Amino acid sequence: MSKLTANIWGAHAVRAAWLNPAREISHIFVTEQAVREFSSFQAMKGEKRPSPTLVSKKDLDKMTDHAVHQGMALVTAPLPEVFLGDLLVATSAQNRSVILMLDQVTDPHNVGAILRSACAFGAAGLILQKKHAPTLDGVLAKTACGAMEHVPVLSETNLSRTIEQLQDAGWTVIGLDERGSRTIGQFDLPEKLVLVLGAEGPGLRQNVAHHCDFLAKLEMKGPMPSINVSNAAAVALYAATI
Amino acid sequence: MSKLTANIWGAHAVRAAWLNPAREISHIFVTEQAVREFSSFQAMKGEKRPSPTLVSKKDLDKMTDHAVHQGMALVTAPLPEVFLGDLLVATSAQNRSVILMLDQVTDPHNVGAILRSACAFGAAGLILQKKHAPTLDGVLAKTACGAMEHVPVLSETNLSRTIEQLQDAGWTVIGLDERGSRTIGQFDLPEKLVLVLGAEGPGLRQNVAHHCDFLAKLEMKGPMPSINVSNAAAVALYAATI
Repeated sequence: MSKLTANIWGAHAVRAAWLNPAREISHIFVTEQAVREFSSFQAMKGEKRPSPTLVSKKDLDKMTDHAVHQGMALVTAPLPEVFLGDLLVATSAQNRSVILMLDQVTDPHNVGAILRSACAFGAAGLILQKKHAPTLDGVLAKTACGAMEHVPVLSETNLSRTIEQLQDAGWTVIGLDERGSRTIGQFDLPEKLVLVLGAEGPGLRQNVAHHCDFLAKLEMKGPMPSINVSNAAAVALYAATI
Repeated sequence: MSKLTANIWGAHAVRAAWLNPAREISHIFVTEQAVREFSSFQAMKGEKRPSPTLVSKKDLDKMTDHAVHQGMALVTAPLPEVFLGDLLVATSAQNRSVILMLDQVTDPHNVGAILRSACAFGAAGLILQKKHAPTLDGVLAKTACGAMEHVPVLSETNLSRTIEQLQDAGWTVIGLDERGSRTIGQFDLPEKLVLVLGAEGPGLRQNVAHHCDFLAKLEMKGPMPSINVSNAAAVALYAATI
């Protein structure tokens, strides 16, 4: 049993996956210490759920490659793929929508925290570049604290092309970039807004920046005006949704 | 040589420490791959600096307990302790000042990212609770990307008492707490503002919350209105400084 590799762990992430009817779950492992907490989300469980297997902490350590699993982990198939068309349909009836796009942000802790913020601020979706994105499980899922079950995550091959498609559908695309002449707070933000963030250091790739309608910077007056990318995403989402 | 334990590593953190005249540095280790980058910040170096020792990546891995050291690490004494009185004097001539206070936030990645945001948004200082705070080096310093050399960090024994002292000195203390009746954006923010954040999960301790002048929440409309504490700090700092 301990040869199985779990791909979602941590109380929040497991709970949200367990309660998500779109999730196919083949195995769930719980330690004795976590049985009580796990049983608290049994009541709302979906139809097709495996019986939990009681495991030792040591076994769960192995199955999660010594992650902070909080006594529970599961094995699941990826969520069904979401396409841009789905996202456009889902947001068409909304007054205000924000989509977040990440250009080659690869650290799963950062992408997980960004997904969590996207969920908290009500973003309609998160778009990643297929080739340079972490897998949608494990550390990312743990850091997202369940947000992965609520925010559609899209993997696109060519972000510039995706930006064009969004623009054709009436969305305004703002890239976060220190070269922006205005701060994000100085924009009269549109109803359909895409926020694009690049990786720390390299920032937005030239072609992606070039495709944005505007570049905006964050207002930072301190001696080192540079923050962690997940913090930047949270600030931008806050500025775009207040 | 490889028996020495480095306590600051990573290019940004090492650079900032190296250039900080208040830092006493006893050893600096650089790999061949990083010599060029290291030499770029030689010119501005202070008077009392040791000669760099060339080490293998493997040795540096050992000295940093396999951290992401980017080819450079150093051994340094802690910065001179900063006291509340120093901070009050330093901010007395400023028009607007924000101090950040963390109530038992213990994860060094989070505190490091918060310190970086504090620096970026121009906060005057960061106050931690002595007993429940990570050490001011290693992972925290790496995550702070050099901000530790710019933002005074205070360690206080009793945060409630510190809040009283700040209030006596004319500061308004706002605790970030979901029980707040207003959002941070709805406050007409004072010139001397202390923002207090608690750990994820437990939040502010009762006594600390009780001592705040106001409790404020962040405006989050999504299905899971909860974000990582470093993201919350960044949003609060942004809201307080725009």
